[in-house]
Amino acid sequence: MPSEPSRSLTVHGYSLSGNCHKVRLLLEQLALAYRWIEVDSSAGQTRTPAYLAKNANGKVPMLELDDGRILVESDAILYWLADGTPFLPADPWQRAQAMRWLFFEQYSHEPCIAVARFVRGWTHADSPRRVELPRLLEGGHKALAVMEHHLQAARWFTGADYGIADIALFAYTDVAGHGGFDMSAYPAIRDWLARVRATPGFVAMPEPPAEVAARLASST
Amino acid sequence: MPSEPSRSLTVHGYSLSGNCHKVRLLLEQLALAYRWIEVDSSAGQTRTPAYLAKNANGKVPMLELDDGRILVESDAILYWLADGTPFLPADPWQRAQAMRWLFFEQYSHEPCIAVARFVRGWTHADSPRRVELPRLLEGGHKALAVMEHHLQAARWFTGADYGIADIALFAYTDVAGHGGFDMSAYPAIRDWLARVRATPGFVAMPEPPAEVAARLASST
Repeated sequence: MPSEPSRSLTVHGYSLSGNCHKVRLLLEQLALAYRWIEVDSSAGQTRTPAYLAKNANGKVPMLELDDGRILVESDAILYWLADGTPFLPADPWQRAQAMRWLFFEQYSHEPCIAVARFVRGWTHADSPRRVELPRLLEGGHKALAVMEHHLQAARWFTGADYGIADIALFAYTDVAGHGGFDMSAYPAIRDWLARVRATPGFVAMPEPPAEVAARLASST
Repeated sequence: MPSEPSRSLTVHGYSLSGNCHKVRLLLEQLALAYRWIEVDSSAGQTRTPAYLAKNANGKVPMLELDDGRILVESDAILYWLADGTPFLPADPWQRAQAMRWLFFEQYSHEPCIAVARFVRGWTHADSPRRVELPRLLEGGHKALAVMEHHLQAARWFTGADYGIADIALFAYTDVAGHGGFDMSAYPAIRDWLARVRATPGFVAMPEPPAEVAARLASST
């Protein structure tokens, strides 16, 4: 990002999405100015013709530059914003290890831990999607075990220091309880979550609205 | 990769896995020497204690350097090998766009198109996993439509030239028929597949063994 001329940045995002919150957290920690356009993906706002014209994959977050250029995929946005900053190592091997955790997050972590949270909080109690929960919990616990194993020998996922792989993994791990995950078996993850929360410029994801919170509290 | 001293490279991979074939294809096209250790993930060989000690996530491919260092996640391996070569753009924005397609591949494409192939070819005809096929086909066609849309205005996914985003997306798109995908609606993808096959040093994934081929041929 510093290698680009200074540009005004617009994020199209849903504030309660961990994938979107990742981008906000990094922008805040980089102290970059940005405009945030709230797009409620849970209410179909990523499926309008105007939105699909900018992102044919119909997902948030989406980064838009003042010249109209578009970048999508949360972890690609983190990568671009962090390039040339302390949030992404310069060493090629360390950089590839950070990428490893970004791909782990999108393949093995988010599809279980984020989706379990969505099903419990954003679908009705009698939704047919609730049958997915046991499989999502099983897969999510496998991902958490891999993270716990890593953190027994390392403080961070990005490299020697905190950075975008930590931000990417933090987003949904911090709200894993929403998906029904009991975190008591993961002391190293709990310590790491506390370290992330203590980083300069940290901002938390907003609390869900009352109707979602009620579903999360009543779900089994 | 060129910024590292020359190292002997060992790939632990299953030759019939698109995720593993990606790595082989790039290594061949970079004309790098490597050792390939066949690990049949469909037969539990990624779940042995010895394998899990090297990769707690229990997946192939895995790249091992001669000093014992390990890199996992297929697209992170591509990224590391391609860094500093024409297979990954040097321009930060173009590089981020290539990353965008790598994340798309792992999140929206592989979990449908590769998994449909696995279910049809590597599970028995009465496997309970076959109930997943309609959902996998639906998701896979959504991903293919996003690719077709991109290719109506661009020749490649990596940037101005062929590179790792093309390699990553090619691997399972080229065998999408194994998953039951009819590619007739995607003329731009079919043309792009042909362009990839014509790149210098291209190697195809091996054909599946007879028992798998028979299941693929008889599946509905």
